[in-house]
Amino acid sequence: MSERIAVYPGSFDPVTYGHLDILKRGLTVFDHVIIAVLNNASKHPLFTVEERVDMLKKATAHLDSVTVDSFEGLLVDYVQKKKVSVVLRGLRAISDFEYELQIASINKHLNPKIETCFMMTSNRYSFLSSSMVKEAAMYHGSVHELVPAQVEQALEAKFSSGRSSI
Amino acid sequence: MSERIAVYPGSFDPVTYGHLDILKRGLTVFDHVIIAVLNNASKHPLFTVEERVDMLKKATAHLDSVTVDSFEGLLVDYVQKKKVSVVLRGLRAISDFEYELQIASINKHLNPKIETCFMMTSNRYSFLSSSMVKEAAMYHGSVHELVPAQVEQALEAKFSSGRSSI
Amino acid sequence: MSERIAVYPGSFDPVTYGHLDILKRGLTVFDHVIIAVLNNASKHPLFTVEERVDMLKKATAHLDSVTVDSFEGLLVDYVQKKKVSVVLRGLRAISDFEYELQIASINKHLNPKIETCFMMTSNRYSFLSSSMVKEAAMYHGSVHELVPAQVEQALEAKFSSGRSSI
Amino acid sequence: MSERIAVYPGSFDPVTYGHLDILKRGLTVFDHVIIAVLNNASKHPLFTVEERVDMLKKATAHLDSVTVDSFEGLLVDYVQKKKVSVVLRGLRAISDFEYELQIASINKHLNPKIETCFMMTSNRYSFLSSSMVKEAAMYHGSVHELVPAQVEQALEAKFSSGRSSI
Amino acid sequence: MSERIAVYPGSFDPVTYGHLDILKRGLTVFDHVIIAVLNNASKHPLFTVEERVDMLKKATAHLDSVTVDSFEGLLVDYVQKKKVSVVLRGLRAISDFEYELQIASINKHLNPKIETCFMMTSNRYSFLSSSMVKEAAMYHGSVHELVPAQVEQALEAKFSSGRSSI
Amino acid sequence: MSERIAVYPGSFDPVTYGHLDILKRGLTVFDHVIIAVLNNASKHPLFTVEERVDMLKKATAHLDSVTVDSFEGLLVDYVQKKKVSVVLRGLRAISDFEYELQIASINKHLNPKIETCFMMTSNRYSFLSSSMVKEAAMYHGSVHELVPAQVEQALEAKFSSGRSSI
Repeated sequence: MSERIAVYPGSFDPVTYGHLDILKRGLTVFDHVIIAVLNNASKHPLFTVEERVDMLKKATAHLDSVTVDSFEGLLVDYVQKKKVSVVLRGLRAISDFEYELQIASINKHLNPKIETCFMMTSNRYSFLSSSMVKEAAMYHGSVHELVPAQVEQALEAKFSSGRSSI
Repeated sequence: MSERIAVYPGSFDPVTYGHLDILKRGLTVFDHVIIAVLNNASKHPLFTVEERVDMLKKATAHLDSVTVDSFEGLLVDYVQKKKVSVVLRGLRAISDFEYELQIASINKHLNPKIETCFMMTSNRYSFLSSSMVKEAAMYHGSVHELVPAQVEQALEAKFSSGRSSI
Repeated sequence: MSERIAVYPGSFDPVTYGHLDILKRGLTVFDHVIIAVLNNASKHPLFTVEERVDMLKKATAHLDSVTVDSFEGLLVDYVQKKKVSVVLRGLRAISDFEYELQIASINKHLNPKIETCFMMTSNRYSFLSSSMVKEAAMYHGSVHELVPAQVEQALEAKFSSGRSSI
Repeated sequence: MSERIAVYPGSFDPVTYGHLDILKRGLTVFDHVIIAVLNNASKHPLFTVEERVDMLKKATAHLDSVTVDSFEGLLVDYVQKKKVSVVLRGLRAISDFEYELQIASINKHLNPKIETCFMMTSNRYSFLSSSMVKEAAMYHGSVHELVPAQVEQALEAKFSSGRSSI
Repeated sequence: MSERIAVYPGSFDPVTYGHLDILKRGLTVFDHVIIAVLNNASKHPLFTVEERVDMLKKATAHLDSVTVDSFEGLLVDYVQKKKVSVVLRGLRAISDFEYELQIASINKHLNPKIETCFMMTSNRYSFLSSSMVKEAAMYHGSVHELVPAQVEQALEAKFSSGRSSI
Repeated sequence: MSERIAVYPGSFDPVTYGHLDILKRGLTVFDHVIIAVLNNASKHPLFTVEERVDMLKKATAHLDSVTVDSFEGLLVDYVQKKKVSVVLRGLRAISDFEYELQIASINKHLNPKIETCFMMTSNRYSFLSSSMVKEAAMYHGSVHELVPAQVEQALEAKFSSGRSSI
């Protein structure tokens, strides 16, 4: 039996407990998970790709079987370059379904050898998205139970420096 | 028994008969409704927050139990400042559901004491949104049955002054 | 100001913590809630309407502002007979939306004076339905965290007596 | 140019103003519409197929370009036998979409030459279904604005004769 | 590294190419898949559990890493008895999503150690369900491209013997 | 019998095989289809309206009963100017439904004489959208099976000239 590896791609701008919940579930199915941060500078993320990778590394430091990486371009090309054949994605009870299926379909078209495996976010995180976290943090709402401590601090640093919108 | 007050938040850019339909329904449940216009300048609304408040005041002038206000920042902070515990939101048969539940969930997280009460828009307004109204008005389609008269005039004024897109 | 009363209708076959969560939320908006158990013998409920009313009475015994009743026929007729104008319904993140809007629409048609006020179930109960509870209990899965203690016992009694399906 | 004919299939148990709304829209696109009542005795309809055909004939008596018929078995076989290539179906804003696409897909599989053309029900009928009408009529709720007069009478006759459920 | 095993549960009444498509995808992620046929006699399946198991065994005879079994009662109990921790389920673009999430949620509640992994059916099978196949076969529509040859024959045998409905 | 003409509007930025699939289906219902390219410069399309019209003309050159045109402003005004009363739109199994119904509703409001006829995209194109094609092409993923050859070349030309995002 070979090692079962999955790529878990996303913007992670920033990582939330919802993402970490999916990661934890993924590790019950896969021997190793590569978190792949999309380098999407043209979408004006709040955090640079380096900051996002760094926050993910700290948030997963206690896990042996996780690697954090970043990629540009098509996901299927990155996945193939890594010699992996499975993509891990989270599904929230609210709102992700159709978009996720659309992405999985086009990826399937671009490279039929790559499968997407969906796991379901815990109900308690079903409303949680990075953009909701950013909107709350921008107005100094508490995000303590939504993101790891160092992400909370990074959000505070961003929004105390006079940045007025996201 | 204390007075039952609800906050009805939104962009109201501009107010439509769909909004007023929800307001009317809300007044069968609540003694008083505070319409709270979101000051979201970073989203480039067509009307300024002052213009939007003014149009709402005119459209609700005949109603004793309605106040029009505006707010910035997190809705839950505004609601708490007003010492209110209920948010009123409309649901249209088409398209609002998941987004509304997501917002209600994060608000619930940010302040568990605040409840959201959803009421359902009349079927005849189920397709009606402020952005549809703006798109129709921009190209001089009739919005007479969709918005109050003074909103119709304000839209005509905006789009006759050479503004070319929304 | 008059007292604000809502009717909270349903099959409650049996009542779950999800129903009680909606009831609790409803009591932050309304002064009094009448729980109205639908007498739908033709749908072959697991519990008789008397059993369901009894379980609800025990589960809400600590609440002054709740009445438990049952009704037959059209909800709008029952609501009008009670001189109430608002119906309270729960919305779960998963699965209720379209059905609830359809019911609210036809009720609105049958009696335009009656409004439906929707409140959102806690995320932790978003998957919870009476039929899921019955299916789990039938095969002796634990429903301890899903229903009040006396409902758990009633379910055990039903399914230990040789009844083989629901 | 040949005559454009479509088959409009359904249970029509009984016909509602929603069905007639779709029929009217269909007649702006097609020269002739054949209403095809599904003979689905195993589903225990309230009205026999003869009664349903009869009610449809009366409700469309003023229209030259409409025929009322019934069929058993696969829709695609009926459509082909009639030498027609288009099926007309209504879509309500609430609730029909996925089921309709599923049916259209399997029909497309069974006979690729047959296309389904969907038209959208008026918003005012978006909540209206035959089963809602039957439920309201069973408890003597008014269905006057929902179905033609002779259907209203037929419903009254059915439910006054002691029939206790649908 | 231990062997990765998943349980793929369902009614399989009868197995379709859509099920086999999910199985094939599952085998790219898991070392072994146990197909578990639900013994749901109370739902009046067309085929007995023995017939369903037999058809699945023939349809997967060429695959080493597949076992076919049946179970009664709660899925989570069966999965635990098999010492497996992952359930495999298919998602069709049309219609499965909310039901599947609801089931996954209650299973998660009943046994938090068991994860559900969803894979997406090929677009060409997104409309395909066992009940659609049965309905088509009942009226002698061709199901040749939808189910394996021996299932096609079994359907013909069932429906030629005078059985009139499903 | 008069000729049956429909307007098939869209951005077509660029045309895909999904659009051509709907066009082909539309031609089984209508005698003639006018493809109407929306001149939406303010939305920053990848291709100019002239380029989009040109690609559509080449892709439909073999079809007698198709005209390619462009329009600005409200669709209902364009449709009326063309003396047509039917709009043709495609529905994909994934993602279009609510948006399409919303547009059809407001168009119905703006001009009640104009009907929208929806046809369903082939399952194999249900994931296909112009934006997915652009995203794939930008990173040199193969779009060979998704768009006509001259569109594939036009995409390559756009993205080889140093353009870095869409």
